[in-house]
Amino acid sequence: MTTIKPRVLKGFRDFLPPQELARRDMIETIERRFRSFGFVPIDTPALEYAEILLGKGGGETEKQVYRFTDHGGRDVALRFDLTVPFARFAAEHRSGLILPFKRYHIAKVWRGENTQRGRYREFTQCDFDILGSDCAAADFEILLMMRCCLLSLCGTKTDLTIRLNHRGLFNRFLDSLGLRDKSADILRQVDKLGKTGREGVRELLEETTGERASGKILEYISLGEGEDYRKALEQLKAAAGEGEDTRRLEELHRYMKDAGAEDCFVLDPSITRGLDYYTGLVCETFLNRLPGIGSVCSGGRYDNLTELYSREAAGGVGASIGLDRLQAALEELGSVESGFSAAATAIACLKAEDSGKAQALAEGFRRRGIRCEVFLEPKKQTQQFILAEKKGIPWVIIPGTEDAGGFDRFTLRNIAARENREGLDAETAARIMTTR
Amino acid sequence: MTTIKPRVLKGFRDFLPPQELARRDMIETIERRFRSFGFVPIDTPALEYAEILLGKGGGETEKQVYRFTDHGGRDVALRFDLTVPFARFAAEHRSGLILPFKRYHIAKVWRGENTQRGRYREFTQCDFDILGSDCAAADFEILLMMRCCLLSLCGTKTDLTIRLNHRGLFNRFLDSLGLRDKSADILRQVDKLGKTGREGVRELLEETTGERASGKILEYISLGEGEDYRKALEQLKAAAGEGEDTRRLEELHRYMKDAGAEDCFVLDPSITRGLDYYTGLVCETFLNRLPGIGSVCSGGRYDNLTELYSREAAGGVGASIGLDRLQAALEELGSVESGFSAAATAIACLKAEDSGKAQALAEGFRRRGIRCEVFLEPKKQTQQFILAEKKGIPWVIIPGTEDAGGFDRFTLRNIAARENREGLDAETAARIMTTR
Repeated sequence: MTTIKPRVLKGFRDFLPPQELARRDMIETIERRFRSFGFVPIDTPALEYAEILLGKGGGETEKQVYRFTDHGGRDVALRFDLTVPFARFAAEHRSGLILPFKRYHIAKVWRGENTQRGRYREFTQCDFDILGSDCAAADFEILLMMRCCLLSLCGTKTDLTIRLNHRGLFNRFLDSLGLRDKSADILRQVDKLGKTGREGVRELLEETTGERASGKILEYISLGEGEDYRKALEQLKAAAGEGEDTRRLEELHRYMKDAGAEDCFVLDPSITRGLDYYTGLVCETFLNRLPGIGSVCSGGRYDNLTELYSREAAGGVGASIGLDRLQAALEELGSVESGFSAAATAIACLKAEDSGKAQALAEGFRRRGIRCEVFLEPKKQTQQFILAEKKGIPWVIIPGTEDAGGFDRFTLRNIAARENREGLDAETAARIMTTR
Repeated sequence: MTTIKPRVLKGFRDFLPPQELARRDMIETIERRFRSFGFVPIDTPALEYAEILLGKGGGETEKQVYRFTDHGGRDVALRFDLTVPFARFAAEHRSGLILPFKRYHIAKVWRGENTQRGRYREFTQCDFDILGSDCAAADFEILLMMRCCLLSLCGTKTDLTIRLNHRGLFNRFLDSLGLRDKSADILRQVDKLGKTGREGVRELLEETTGERASGKILEYISLGEGEDYRKALEQLKAAAGEGEDTRRLEELHRYMKDAGAEDCFVLDPSITRGLDYYTGLVCETFLNRLPGIGSVCSGGRYDNLTELYSREAAGGVGASIGLDRLQAALEELGSVESGFSAAATAIACLKAEDSGKAQALAEGFRRRGIRCEVFLEPKKQTQQFILAEKKGIPWVIIPGTEDAGGFDRFTLRNIAARENREGLDAETAARIMTTR
């Protein structure tokens, strides 16, 4: 029989145990944090009517989406983000939701885009949103959650910068230049600052606005650089005037101070987020030791999420953690480590017929919270130590002979130290393994 | 602007917070259990080359699979189970795996089948397998994990029956009737016993084997009914003779007894599993209070998982929990409960400008392991109590006036009892909320 070459599609990946253990641990951390704020999970189908997902349609998105006709002749597509399905969800279940609705959604999305380094066609998003609240407290909660989650995942406050801005402020500045009608283009061009650099943005802007205005815009988006939040805000007010937006930014700063969380936050007029639907706060998160990878958590406030599916307006604020990018960053920083077994200890297999007794002993450890693997095939002791070492299991239990106590009195091997302790019972062994 | 009607595809579902909370808790329980046995997670792409997924192809599977041509002109499909991707994965990464390889995989799969009650086109499978071990200890570990996981999810031993059989034993019995060449059909027909009942199976068998043989098969698959494992095995040995298979079944029974886990397990010659690839042990799990819903966890031993993609044989044993069916069952049994918030307590919002202080207090509770939501919009106290009640949050904290201690001394409201305790600090409140 000829065999089929085993391979995955370009832009798709297998996750081997070390990567997948790390990934699931990250998700667990994020989810625990989300729930600690009272946020609840939802889920939506991977596959939806193309009309639902592409409603506003056109442009880049439409080209990238996996779209096809199903068995029933329906025009369907794989979701390309979690925002559009959330909008559909919120419109469909509106009457069953309690507002403000604080939800999170951790799931895969698919985009058939060009595969560059670190870009995949299947990736995981972790979205969290507060729907149905316009107040500054909601903006602040999302910012605080960004900070909490990222701190839980990647260490200390000095590693993290959350840059924020307000769309209203930027638009008011554009008004003063008479460029409001070109704001969508300008926002998208400024958004490329991280990728193309200042001169790249200048070129783009010049085409849209001419040389003089582009110079003013570049000057504006550099305001506050290196300054603290308060001073940056003063400069922006001087340049663009005051309004609802500057008052909102002031309010947020007061909350940050009251919550003892003002570190990490920087006011940055160059943060625009390319996406059309943001109307207020916009924000991005950078790892200070790896600024080049771009934002690992971004978001903002939107006025009307559900307008495509419902005449009832529903505004909100939310953000999304890019799990794949973040995992790649943490790997690069060396803060992810994990082996090929989830176990803390293994029970050696000396005689095949002892398998039931070995599992009974193992269950005792598991009940004490110690993950315990049972080796299945009889092998020489040294072979079993090698197996434990390969799998990254730090301890091995070697049952005694029948005379020496069998599974009641056994030897505990410390794999790294290559040391044995003999004649232990389960309780003593558990204590040694957990107090190392 | 006209709006698009928000709706999901037939056979697909949204999970609202109460259902999704319960679902994620189930997955967390299962995953904790898997890891306690040292099993590690993997993940594979949702989308693969159709050739990879449908290799053996033909029949029902091919008709049900979501298959299409992607942007690059590739013939691709959504995975319809986790076994085929695991086979491809094992062949592709063979040199990087440590055998025996104990992995789990919890993920969605898609099948465009007819939607009957409780059947969905998108559903979650939880697969766990030991690849690369032929020994009885591996079979036993899978059986033990089925028992442990299901007990963790749905209560007591008396609620659970795991029925097992051996393909070799059944095939030897068919040999004795001269029907070995029809075994694939017969296995599939017997597998319908739960669905169509005894007379339904008789009709199917008569067409394949004639009246006399079908009578004998029906007699055989009733052997051991109501008997304990040992007696059932004696009856099967008398009917089909002894062999490797009966010795394996004996061995498994000894391990069960040694591990103190013989309850739940029943030897049942009518368990065949319809699928072609099983060659040894086969097993199914039933909830005694809801036998009609069918098996919630099934599996077995296979000889050569990777044969389609590799000339190196790789046998193993594994099982899969049908999470959607199990969740439906637990809902029916009333053992799932959860509300619309993940929080144990909420901080009332009396003044919008106190949002930073409220979050600071909330963080203190969260650090103590108490999930704490912050209400975002200023409302009357009674309105906030109603909101907490609707969301299923048992406690509400009402900050004092500035004179009365603000966020340092506050009132704790017990929503169910409609009782207030005044003048508490965070530590006292935390103690009250966690020792209820």
